Amino acid sequence: MKSAFKFPIRIYWEDTDAGGIVFYANYLKFFERARTEWLRSLGIEQQSLKAQSSGIFVVSETQIKYFLPARLDDLLEVTAQTTEKGRASLVLTQQAWLNAKGERNLLAEGTIRIGWVDSQTMKPGRIPAQILEVLQ
Amino acid sequence: MKSAFKFPIRIYWEDTDAGGIVFYANYLKFFERARTEWLRSLGIEQQSLKAQSSGIFVVSETQIKYFLPARLDDLLEVTAQTTEKGRASLVLTQQAWLNAKGERNLLAEGTIRIGWVDSQTMKPGRIPAQILEVLQ
Amino acid sequence: MKSAFKFPIRIYWEDTDAGGIVFYANYLKFFERARTEWLRSLGIEQQSLKAQSSGIFVVSETQIKYFLPARLDDLLEVTAQTTEKGRASLVLTQQAWLNAKGERNLLAEGTIRIGWVDSQTMKPGRIPAQILEVLQ
Amino acid sequence: MKSAFKFPIRIYWEDTDAGGIVFYANYLKFFERARTEWLRSLGIEQQSLKAQSSGIFVVSETQIKYFLPARLDDLLEVTAQTTEKGRASLVLTQQAWLNAKGERNLLAEGTIRIGWVDSQTMKPGRIPAQILEVLQ
Repeated sequence: MKSAFKFPIRIYWEDTDAGGIVFYANYLKFFERARTEWLRSLGIEQQSLKAQSSGIFVVSETQIKYFLPARLDDLLEVTAQTTEKGRASLVLTQQAWLNAKGERNLLAEGTIRIGWVDSQTMKPGRIPAQILEVLQ
Repeated sequence: MKSAFKFPIRIYWEDTDAGGIVFYANYLKFFERARTEWLRSLGIEQQSLKAQSSGIFVVSETQIKYFLPARLDDLLEVTAQTTEKGRASLVLTQQAWLNAKGERNLLAEGTIRIGWVDSQTMKPGRIPAQILEVLQ
Repeated sequence: MKSAFKFPIRIYWEDTDAGGIVFYANYLKFFERARTEWLRSLGIEQQSLKAQSSGIFVVSETQIKYFLPARLDDLLEVTAQTTEKGRASLVLTQQAWLNAKGERNLLAEGTIRIGWVDSQTMKPGRIPAQILEVLQ
Repeated sequence: MKSAFKFPIRIYWEDTDAGGIVFYANYLKFFERARTEWLRSLGIEQQSLKAQSSGIFVVSETQIKYFLPARLDDLLEVTAQTTEKGRASLVLTQQAWLNAKGERNLLAEGTIRIGWVDSQTMKPGRIPAQILEVLQ
């Protein structure tokens, strides 16, 4: 099994809430940044994909468990790894880790299903062959 | 079974993304607004709760399925209904509906687990009796 | 001089930051919600405008002064009032007020310039006559 | 005059809106990320500052002009430079640049005033000497 793709994400004021911790909805943003960089690392740029193929990936299902909070100035390590590959959708498992004070803690873990749709009609379709190939 | 609490949410530019639709992470915000208004309708204000009890609700698990997109200017109806009640946490089922052009469509559905924690230590604890009572 | 349009905005967790107050960037969102509702009150829906005219309003300049913080659960009153009307752009003055504990306080005040552009090319153009008329 | 601090910021789906471009309010976030990294480069971490001094910087005034839009996948260069230094507040000039296709374009420019306040009372105070020294 290939090791997961890793991407560093710094916590800023914009990410926190009045509980003094990172607002839970923002992990979906962090996971997406890591997915986008994982795709980019494979040579897939979503903006040019949209222009070329008139298709885009959209998120069709998300699931997240929150274990420990992150705080202002924390530097997270966010992972992305495909755990299911179909003709029309992919499932990724993603984690957010914090390395601090000699400890490594899992803050949150999620599974995200992304499906391929036509960018005009939003109707599902098959993931283009060129992309499926790269993902093998 | 009691009917679900309902709250109207309008879609603004801030909610949309370059796909021309509502950014999926924002449904977690919409669900939270509806939960907050549901709690308020039961006489529970989170800011004063925090001041009185030094505890707050935090989200420990989320799960969302996305069926159809919402767009700029759409007026959603977002529901909140408890489907599990424990001593330390609650599970709510929440839906986002769009009524337009004579149709009523389910856009997204999620389950959200919220747990009670001390607002300083973020350690889990029992939901205060006064709140559990109101939720019966 | 006509009185300003007023729109109520409730503060949720999503709006706050780890300082315990509303994150300052979010006032731009609050001002936009109020502008959108002001336009809607004049019969102007931006989504259908875009479809009909292929043009949209975009923000070209913003200026905000922050006087007092808002907090979780606060109910703000946000205003919108045109203070300059041109062929290609409008300037609005917008304020966020908090009425609480018998006091009425101005939290933030801004001026926002919005210009008309073609939604494809993003090039500036003249505001359609039908809209200018409504704004008189 | 010292040259400006520079920080790279990548545009993700979360940053865009249904106009197909970056939502204007997000430049306040980009400017803050760059300010935070500029402070960090000077050895100032806001989370530990808050713990040590019980004070924080808050934004008291913002002004932004928008010249050209950014899009999904763009890589911006965001600058931060102090243009006014007082005992209780600083003014920074900040710019967002896009280098693409052999061109270098200024997308947005702003001035941001940040003032020092007590993190409990939110009352203004003098910027601690240790910070003022570092900023010289």
